[in-house]
Amino acid sequence: MNKSNLFVHTDAWQILQNEIYKLNKKEFHLKNLINTKNRLKKFSKQKCNFFFDYSKQRIDEKIFSNLIDMSKELYIREKFSSMTDGAIVNQTEKRAALHTATRDFSNKKIIINKKNILPDIIKERKKTKQFSLKIHNQSIKTQSNKAFTDAVVIGIGGSYLGCNFVYNAMLNNYKAKLNLHFLANVDIDSFSKVISKINIQTTLWIVISKSYTTTETMANLNQVMMYLKDNDINPENHLVIVTSKGSPGDDSSNPSLESFHMFDFIGGRYSVTSAVGGVPLSLAFGYDVFESFLKGAHEMDEHAKNAENNKNIPLIASLINIWNFNALGYKALGIIPYSYSLSKLAPHIQQLSMESLGKSVTQDKDFIDYNTGTIVFGEPGTNAQHSFFQLAHQGIAFPIEFIGVINPGYKGKQSKFYGVYNHQELWTNMLSQAHSLATGKENSDNSRFFPGNRPSSTIIIENLKAENIGKLLSYYEAKTIFEGLILNINPFDQFGVELGKLNAKNIRKEIMEKNKNKDYEIKEIDDTSKYYLDLLYAKKFL
Amino acid sequence: MNKSNLFVHTDAWQILQNEIYKLNKKEFHLKNLINTKNRLKKFSKQKCNFFFDYSKQRIDEKIFSNLIDMSKELYIREKFSSMTDGAIVNQTEKRAALHTATRDFSNKKIIINKKNILPDIIKERKKTKQFSLKIHNQSIKTQSNKAFTDAVVIGIGGSYLGCNFVYNAMLNNYKAKLNLHFLANVDIDSFSKVISKINIQTTLWIVISKSYTTTETMANLNQVMMYLKDNDINPENHLVIVTSKGSPGDDSSNPSLESFHMFDFIGGRYSVTSAVGGVPLSLAFGYDVFESFLKGAHEMDEHAKNAENNKNIPLIASLINIWNFNALGYKALGIIPYSYSLSKLAPHIQQLSMESLGKSVTQDKDFIDYNTGTIVFGEPGTNAQHSFFQLAHQGIAFPIEFIGVINPGYKGKQSKFYGVYNHQELWTNMLSQAHSLATGKENSDNSRFFPGNRPSSTIIIENLKAENIGKLLSYYEAKTIFEGLILNINPFDQFGVELGKLNAKNIRKEIMEKNKNKDYEIKEIDDTSKYYLDLLYAKKFL
Repeated sequence: MNKSNLFVHTDAWQILQNEIYKLNKKEFHLKNLINTKNRLKKFSKQKCNFFFDYSKQRIDEKIFSNLIDMSKELYIREKFSSMTDGAIVNQTEKRAALHTATRDFSNKKIIINKKNILPDIIKERKKTKQFSLKIHNQSIKTQSNKAFTDAVVIGIGGSYLGCNFVYNAMLNNYKAKLNLHFLANVDIDSFSKVISKINIQTTLWIVISKSYTTTETMANLNQVMMYLKDNDINPENHLVIVTSKGSPGDDSSNPSLESFHMFDFIGGRYSVTSAVGGVPLSLAFGYDVFESFLKGAHEMDEHAKNAENNKNIPLIASLINIWNFNALGYKALGIIPYSYSLSKLAPHIQQLSMESLGKSVTQDKDFIDYNTGTIVFGEPGTNAQHSFFQLAHQGIAFPIEFIGVINPGYKGKQSKFYGVYNHQELWTNMLSQAHSLATGKENSDNSRFFPGNRPSSTIIIENLKAENIGKLLSYYEAKTIFEGLILNINPFDQFGVELGKLNAKNIRKEIMEKNKNKDYEIKEIDDTSKYYLDLLYAKKFL
Repeated sequence: MNKSNLFVHTDAWQILQNEIYKLNKKEFHLKNLINTKNRLKKFSKQKCNFFFDYSKQRIDEKIFSNLIDMSKELYIREKFSSMTDGAIVNQTEKRAALHTATRDFSNKKIIINKKNILPDIIKERKKTKQFSLKIHNQSIKTQSNKAFTDAVVIGIGGSYLGCNFVYNAMLNNYKAKLNLHFLANVDIDSFSKVISKINIQTTLWIVISKSYTTTETMANLNQVMMYLKDNDINPENHLVIVTSKGSPGDDSSNPSLESFHMFDFIGGRYSVTSAVGGVPLSLAFGYDVFESFLKGAHEMDEHAKNAENNKNIPLIASLINIWNFNALGYKALGIIPYSYSLSKLAPHIQQLSMESLGKSVTQDKDFIDYNTGTIVFGEPGTNAQHSFFQLAHQGIAFPIEFIGVINPGYKGKQSKFYGVYNHQELWTNMLSQAHSLATGKENSDNSRFFPGNRPSSTIIIENLKAENIGKLLSYYEAKTIFEGLILNINPFDQFGVELGKLNAKNIRKEIMEKNKNKDYEIKEIDDTSKYYLDLLYAKKFL
């Protein structure tokens, strides 16, 4: 084992080990820590119109500076830069990880295998711009010569969650030129739901799959193709393909209206700023809005790359996660945006974080004995307060990341309730929750006792304009990657999803046989699947 | 401390302590356990057309029988019966917990304070039936003499999550007579989103609040009242109130089209089968559908009450949770329905479980030193596979509850993809995931090694007809209550939400003052709130 790459073997981590115990002392209870002089000023950073407050984390200056030192000992920022420069950081798959290049508007070169990859990225951006413009100015129309009104994204996981988050967030400030829908789940009832919402005559279908072999996406595409055919709609007029070069979908014999490339150096969960998000989001809001989103993401990328460790917002956030999950022993992270428009943020970050960090081997393929990825979950506030915050206050503690937006999207008339506007009420609750979790409250009645000392961070952005959504996205991407680099794991592969696929093949084979021949007797291939498949064919309990 | 009520002091739990360690032996790895003779038959139960498979839990016959014995030592079923009979089981609030009575169609009496409470429940049911019928047959019309097309539920937490789950599940089999929308979050952008989806002329508003003082609900109602007024719509023609007797909303001087009662012996998160779910769901699908839902829930209630401990599905499920979270040390539970229509199941169970069980004192108000509630989270499969299942397979293990539905709702034409229908593909994945998590797979390449031994249960229902949704709801309610009873905590109170409300008052007071007088200088009331409120008023970073 190459110990020099492990954070647990850094000098700083050794020092930090001795700091953990002092946190049990009364003066280190958050209710006291947060009242120390200039606490907010010392433990918050503002950059790129993005504010990060970690004053309610269980750290002090010594802990903070040692966490920063640890990141220096591990050359974390250098490793991050190496990623953005095109190094093969995804070592198990022998690939670069260049989602940052998709939002780079400089003229610098990024060379992989002696080839500058930027021109290909720029080409796809231009193509996206031209195509979405043609749809909007109706120089491309539907088969029956109407304007397109809706677009359905056929894609799952990374081809869906990020775009869904950004689409919902952008509706806060921009009117959709086309409404987006998502067909992700292979459940036929998901297809049923989508077709109940659209007019097939004016709907564009965007199939997104890097490999063009993802079972769910291909099965849904197959169902959609039948549906189009039954409605006499030619996919050459209504289907758009986003896939990687050389995939089965990247073949001019596939009927389509247009096709776009994604790249093998961009993983699904990091692909929102590539054509994966670019095509649907440009169709929904116009390419210019998408470009503002890219520029916001780029601004945060530059900050992540260039800001000194102790001023680097995503790096600090990642170090706090390491502290919380490896030193203090917390087991989950709550993501609570106080913004209805950010309802789909937590599901996206859940994938981004848990798929990137839920690993058990180091980059050197040694098994790991410290904590890696944790459970990430969340719902918007104030809803979450009326759902699981009981446990957050009086059950097992878990850190929370609050997100606040200074200005709402709604510009209409607002009522006041007892002298307070709804948006102010929303903020009142966000502030009160972070404060209450930190301070707790004594009570002689044990059932009304609040232990407090429960850490949280708060992120503030000015509004949900495209550039700020881009910054939020890039912040989470950079934070996740920093965590992966500190944990010395590969945040870009996902071999953990392979076994399920492999075992599915055996089950599917039985179904194929039975579908061909109804008298086929399903074989006992494992402990329970015969029982279940018999139920499925009987369509009822036996 | 009354030790006789603590599961950790039962004889059975003492025996179980000695069983934990054997689970580390090779023959107790799930890949071996699941292949023992008659495993599925021994470790599954079917009742009420509801199948529960716990063969992939880390238990054997000895562990199972001791868990059952533990429940007997603690008189768990007797305590459950005592609840359904009307005992004051919510001791901190001195209330009964009688959600089961809302779906009881027998003529038995349930006496609280010398009064039979059933007649009041039956009265509300009849009123719901009559009112929804009048809306559907258009003997009640809109102010402008049209048919109602949409209803918006104004409510949060327990007045929203359960109804939202059931509404979405029922759309699988029933066409909505009125479309439901939910205005829960106090975020003004939530209001904005709702009004963008409805026609105000044909929309009914249903405000649901037990206390009629819930800030979010009252603030949203206030905004809606202004909106109605601005559109010259009289709430007497368009507003329905669901609240408890004697609340500020239970006053005939409040303008409304109709009003319904909920009862103090039913907590929000257990209220779906009361008027809280009854009014919106009957309006959406007709009272008869709602009654089928009640009857399904009642059937499962009877099973939970009457089935022997070792055949009692929700009780067994609760014991498995105790085993997983208190003996084996897991820290979270995944709820993964392989059904798009059950997308809102996990958020409802998240509230039901985490708010009920996230406690730190016993019924006797002693502080607890064992684990109580855990993190509950989930997304539908197969989506979850492409999101966080990487961590489920190769990161920190957590138990999962899979839910499968034998028949999809969609009745249209289906394509086959490589000989397999989409619904079959969905099941293939569900079966493969449970199997793969249990067995794991050796691999000389550590990054492709799967440790396995990760437990799961699988629930199967025949379809999403109302009665089966009712059973699913009641199963989770009973399971949660059984867990609460075993843990000797009160699953019906939620004092953990009080501190946030209390601290909000101080912040709100500053806002009220500033709204009255723009020159008012916001006071420093805690470590950070002045800073944040200044941002909010500036509408930008300073």
